[in-house]
Amino acid sequence: MNHLETYLAFRKKKQAYQYAMWLISWDQETEAPKNAIDYRSQQIEVLSTLAYEVETDLSRIEAIDALSQDQSLEDTLKREIYLVKKELDNIRKIPKKEFIEFQVLLSQAGQIWAEARKNDDFEGFLPTLEKVIGFQKTMVKYLETDTLKGYDVLLDMYEPGMKTKDYDQFFDTLREKLVPFAKSAAKVKQTFPRALKKPFDTEKQKAFNQYLTGVFNYNMDQGVLKESAHPFTSGVASVDTRITTAYKPDLRSAIFSTIHEMGHAIYEQQVNPLYDETELKGGISMGIHESQSRLYENMIARSASFWMTHYEKLQDTFKKELKQVSLDDFIRYVNEVKLDFIRVEADELTYSLHIMVRYDIEKQLFNGKLKAKDLPKTWNKLYKSYLGIKPKTDQVGVLQDIHWSLGSFGYFPTYALGSAISAQLYHAMSKSIDIDQAIRQNEIVKINEWLKTNIHQYGKLLEPKDLVFKATGEAFNPNYYVDYLIKKYEHILGIKA
Amino acid sequence: MNHLETYLAFRKKKQAYQYAMWLISWDQETEAPKNAIDYRSQQIEVLSTLAYEVETDLSRIEAIDALSQDQSLEDTLKREIYLVKKELDNIRKIPKKEFIEFQVLLSQAGQIWAEARKNDDFEGFLPTLEKVIGFQKTMVKYLETDTLKGYDVLLDMYEPGMKTKDYDQFFDTLREKLVPFAKSAAKVKQTFPRALKKPFDTEKQKAFNQYLTGVFNYNMDQGVLKESAHPFTSGVASVDTRITTAYKPDLRSAIFSTIHEMGHAIYEQQVNPLYDETELKGGISMGIHESQSRLYENMIARSASFWMTHYEKLQDTFKKELKQVSLDDFIRYVNEVKLDFIRVEADELTYSLHIMVRYDIEKQLFNGKLKAKDLPKTWNKLYKSYLGIKPKTDQVGVLQDIHWSLGSFGYFPTYALGSAISAQLYHAMSKSIDIDQAIRQNEIVKINEWLKTNIHQYGKLLEPKDLVFKATGEAFNPNYYVDYLIKKYEHILGIKA
Repeated sequence: MNHLETYLAFRKKKQAYQYAMWLISWDQETEAPKNAIDYRSQQIEVLSTLAYEVETDLSRIEAIDALSQDQSLEDTLKREIYLVKKELDNIRKIPKKEFIEFQVLLSQAGQIWAEARKNDDFEGFLPTLEKVIGFQKTMVKYLETDTLKGYDVLLDMYEPGMKTKDYDQFFDTLREKLVPFAKSAAKVKQTFPRALKKPFDTEKQKAFNQYLTGVFNYNMDQGVLKESAHPFTSGVASVDTRITTAYKPDLRSAIFSTIHEMGHAIYEQQVNPLYDETELKGGISMGIHESQSRLYENMIARSASFWMTHYEKLQDTFKKELKQVSLDDFIRYVNEVKLDFIRVEADELTYSLHIMVRYDIEKQLFNGKLKAKDLPKTWNKLYKSYLGIKPKTDQVGVLQDIHWSLGSFGYFPTYALGSAISAQLYHAMSKSIDIDQAIRQNEIVKINEWLKTNIHQYGKLLEPKDLVFKATGEAFNPNYYVDYLIKKYEHILGIKA
Repeated sequence: MNHLETYLAFRKKKQAYQYAMWLISWDQETEAPKNAIDYRSQQIEVLSTLAYEVETDLSRIEAIDALSQDQSLEDTLKREIYLVKKELDNIRKIPKKEFIEFQVLLSQAGQIWAEARKNDDFEGFLPTLEKVIGFQKTMVKYLETDTLKGYDVLLDMYEPGMKTKDYDQFFDTLREKLVPFAKSAAKVKQTFPRALKKPFDTEKQKAFNQYLTGVFNYNMDQGVLKESAHPFTSGVASVDTRITTAYKPDLRSAIFSTIHEMGHAIYEQQVNPLYDETELKGGISMGIHESQSRLYENMIARSASFWMTHYEKLQDTFKKELKQVSLDDFIRYVNEVKLDFIRVEADELTYSLHIMVRYDIEKQLFNGKLKAKDLPKTWNKLYKSYLGIKPKTDQVGVLQDIHWSLGSFGYFPTYALGSAISAQLYHAMSKSIDIDQAIRQNEIVKINEWLKTNIHQYGKLLEPKDLVFKATGEAFNPNYYVDYLIKKYEHILGIKA
């Protein structure tokens, strides 16, 4: 076998293991019975080991190294080899022993964090957190290159091409323009009909969410809509990209969760199907992924036009409950602004300020200016500074997110980046489509098409920065985001920035 | 590594692949999206190949061969090695090329059969069926031993220890005693309240089926109840044994399907959990498995005592629909006798006569007395002879079952055998438990316990014949079954045999 044949033979195996592990995880999150946990862990361990053996097989490595020098490969394959080579180089740089030790630590850290959060006990989590950060710093050292140092190594894992200096620029813009606006916006008193605060029936919510899958053209022949504790998207190929939602008493919760996840899922469903068996399937980065989910959730589904079109159906579903609630009230309700401590419950206007707190902290942790033990103090100070509020406990403060216990430093900023990119994409899209009209005429498929052509189809073919430039004609520019937010909330709240 | 260590290392891998394939199949039957079929097939092909490589690895084979001579192994391990050696010997006897050719044929035969059934076109299926039978005969030749010849080879695959002469005896008893009784029973005119013939709401059926899982103590922490086109049980270990049901307009359909599948599932859930990581988990044979599902479905859930206890709950669920339906009418309704063409819709009394038709045919096919092309004629003749009716089309006649297109010759007789064994077990159980009282006092858990102690816990540790003897104190005896059926239906229909 030549190098290419060798590589492709291993790719088949890698894909098959990936498929099995993907399905096991989907099953685990959505329906596997409680008592199967140990049995399943045992099988996962064996399958992971087998998959690892495939990925680190010497003949595969040799093939990838050789192919990465081969200029005659066609472009998509060249790109694929670039991506697997990058992954492989990282695996090679980290000593196996340390990598496994880190994984073992992480496998315990999640539980310790959950326990600490439950008991509002930061001190109980601190020793573990310090170890995780220590390991992560060691990993960073191993992975540093001429152009990537320190925290940038981690940032690049979640959003290739974005460094501290890029994020600094982005967050400086937010700090300057958004923070003062959000603070004055939060002072506006909003009131809503009491009917909206009553619990909404789950079965009726299900029916409306089913309706939404049609509105957004989420392809049910290539997906599944199911329930889980926390909503998520899980795709293994364009032909199988599933989502979950969670029904809560608050009517908004499932609606916007489902639409958010559909945004992620439509992205992966619309990747070129020829990539399904390759490494180019799926989304390119966390930031681009989040730009899609946020565009569907916020820019489309929280717009006035959207509810002008679909509120009747919702009222039809909840005849009694929404009889007295006007369209205008409902539109204001889905855009309620509330300064609060919890990121996952934050509104569209203030969401990225929660992220900014986390970014500032991560940056300081990795440039040595902040110690883990001082996290609560810094956390609370930053919340006061950006949102004007101070968490009463660590439970609703520094302990609220799972990410750091998973070692996922560098992940948070992509959430804000995604929101900002969505505004830039929306602006570019509006040059060729009358977006508002498409929404009002129930033709979201037109939006899907534009995104397919300009973003989705490429899968992992293009780097995030190139993708944004190609789709919008310019580099990432956070001003679209700030302008969009200020204009929207000036209108909704009747204030001036 | 010594032989035992080698064997155990391979066992881990085999189990992990088995788990992955099990979950993929469960997902496929219950929720995987339509368009993922090709992608999934590709992954299944790779995983099957990898699993096959593990099973046929020379060092594994060497270890098994050596261990099968090792008298020092403890009993459960000795039994396990016996079972894997038997499997391995069969694999070794069949040339790989022919085995794969047969698998390819079978992978196409199912679709050809489905098409032929749809079009009531036996001739369209005949060439494929002939090829399948031809291959199967060749396989039989490869697998024959000193003690197993011809059709017995196939019978032994599904029910170790049962040969033609055993089944002949069994079916002779049915032919002699049950056929005449069933024919006269079918002449009794049964009428039911019209309310029962109306369609029953699915959501309410779901609620009642959920209630039934509690009644039978089907362990939801080790299982799942879901929907699929055709109800089935799918277990991978005692801690994860799932079932499906299908909701039809006929109220009886889902209730008895669910209970039937719970019978299968409770069996596997109650196998000694220490066997989960071994080859001794799961049920020992198709016949024993069916004896459990039939015992729960028919002997428990179609009994008067069962509905004396639970009909109130059912009436509560379907207040309007069952208001006018008396308990007596309902008990008669769930025991309706109807001579019909379709096996899967057959009642308890006539079910095994449908099987007898298929057994007679298979036996003749494999002893050369019947050619595939004459199947429809023989089928119809046997239906006339055993059930007194003649199918109007092949669609509701010889083409109705999928089994032969899957190459599953020798499987059918275990369905009847299972029913018969269930009666023998019931008789033995009644010596130590007042079964009727347990049912009336909603203590089915007592029945579960007896079955756990006498059948379930053993998993694959004991051969079916030994299991029956151990549990009942005698060899398989079909008279319990015939006596039970005649007594029950004499009472229900008010006739004398």
